[in-house]
Amino acid sequence: MNERDLVRILQRQSPLIGDDCAVLPNGRTDLLVTTDQFIEDVHFRRDTHSASDIGWAMLARGLSDIASMGGTPDYAFVSLALPEWAGASWVKGFYRGFHSLAKRHSVKLGGGDLSHAASLYCDVLVLGAVPRGKALLRSGATPGDTIYVSGPLGRPKKRPQPRVEIGQSLRGRATACMDLSDGLSLDLARLCEASCVGAEISAVPVGRGASIESALHGGEDYELLFTSRRRLPYFAIGTICTGRGVTFDGTPLEPRGYDHFAQRTTRSR
Amino acid sequence: MNERDLVRILQRQSPLIGDDCAVLPNGRTDLLVTTDQFIEDVHFRRDTHSASDIGWAMLARGLSDIASMGGTPDYAFVSLALPEWAGASWVKGFYRGFHSLAKRHSVKLGGGDLSHAASLYCDVLVLGAVPRGKALLRSGATPGDTIYVSGPLGRPKKRPQPRVEIGQSLRGRATACMDLSDGLSLDLARLCEASCVGAEISAVPVGRGASIESALHGGEDYELLFTSRRRLPYFAIGTICTGRGVTFDGTPLEPRGYDHFAQRTTRSR
Repeated sequence: MNERDLVRILQRQSPLIGDDCAVLPNGRTDLLVTTDQFIEDVHFRRDTHSASDIGWAMLARGLSDIASMGGTPDYAFVSLALPEWAGASWVKGFYRGFHSLAKRHSVKLGGGDLSHAASLYCDVLVLGAVPRGKALLRSGATPGDTIYVSGPLGRPKKRPQPRVEIGQSLRGRATACMDLSDGLSLDLARLCEASCVGAEISAVPVGRGASIESALHGGEDYELLFTSRRRLPYFAIGTICTGRGVTFDGTPLEPRGYDHFAQRTTRSR
Repeated sequence: MNERDLVRILQRQSPLIGDDCAVLPNGRTDLLVTTDQFIEDVHFRRDTHSASDIGWAMLARGLSDIASMGGTPDYAFVSLALPEWAGASWVKGFYRGFHSLAKRHSVKLGGGDLSHAASLYCDVLVLGAVPRGKALLRSGATPGDTIYVSGPLGRPKKRPQPRVEIGQSLRGRATACMDLSDGLSLDLARLCEASCVGAEISAVPVGRGASIESALHGGEDYELLFTSRRRLPYFAIGTICTGRGVTFDGTPLEPRGYDHFAQRTTRSR
């Protein structure tokens, strides 16, 4: 079982699953909802990430999902399961990191749940809004569209900056959009699959100190990946085409980004 | 550090924390949001709870929170972190339990997040609605109010029935309300603290096969605890009074219900 198999089980259960956020009709706006888990020894390590790094990064993941839909984030809810080593000072540090990012985007802490657990686990939910029918989806790319990314890729960041303003500016201009959380090769394959198209890319911008390998397959970039019929002031990396699959410099690009369950299977073999 | 200390750290960070749900203004309705964690070896055991029991019980916790505010649940979002032993058939069983309860309340699965982890972890978020300003809070009880519970207490249930219809019927009739998830003695103390009042109880209804001890201090009842100036067709267990603290049959009732962090401290000593 890999992540795609699991997501397919889930998609049969709900038409709302498939984009970075669920889009729920709510009067003149659509409500955006996204949840992201952040788990010790899966998404972070206790010895390399401070409490406030974790508070920041965890919120950044949710804000990046809202950004990818062109939305405005409003509230965050944080569920925390704390092991013995995470006491009051850890919790305070965590919320210090959380609030330093939340303030920049006027996001309010709405609540959450507390428990204990053998290792640290957190889950963040972000609620946002977008004008009705204006959410950017993965499924709108058509052949001939230019493919863009919002910044250089491949450099893992402890305090990623979610591209909320860029996402908002793309409403009505991008034909499809998602955020790069699991690596360009995997995420672009997902965008193409949702849009029933293929992609040819060549000029991938590589972050300072990063390799082309990590720019293509690394995760946690939190830049936006989007398509448009217009010329936009971002990094044009290629073109949407008919057919299926992604090519890089003319050769097929295997989707090798981060798959939670493929990863697990590999590890256990 | 106990749960109360932690909740105090959190309450200083957000005025929205303190009731079973956050209440967010949203036009003519208020949006209700609640999150609940369900963790292996903390909230359930793999050998005694089937996948579908867990799917049911986890959603029941969220629906019970919406019920306690007098609201109508609309969407649920499920974050799952799966250990090796929880494969595709476990996931299908989990969603079978989830949907059998969701259908009864017309709740739609809105989405969620998937990851792997060393032990099973899930977090459910439920979104609901209540007419503007009509949410039932913990803070409205006044001396002289009768204290009610919606059903007999003390019998742990694998498939609890959240009291959604009862909660809705209490709008405009109950002065304060919450759900009984951590035991009557602890939850009533919380309601009294939020309302700045005391309580005298005597006639606690005990579920079949349960002891008065578990009716007073057991958790996971998922009945509603509420106060009203009216006579209502539920179990009247006592009266709200001035002062502080709860008495049972005239003697002080120590709040001994389930505190996640007090529990942990006890265990580690």
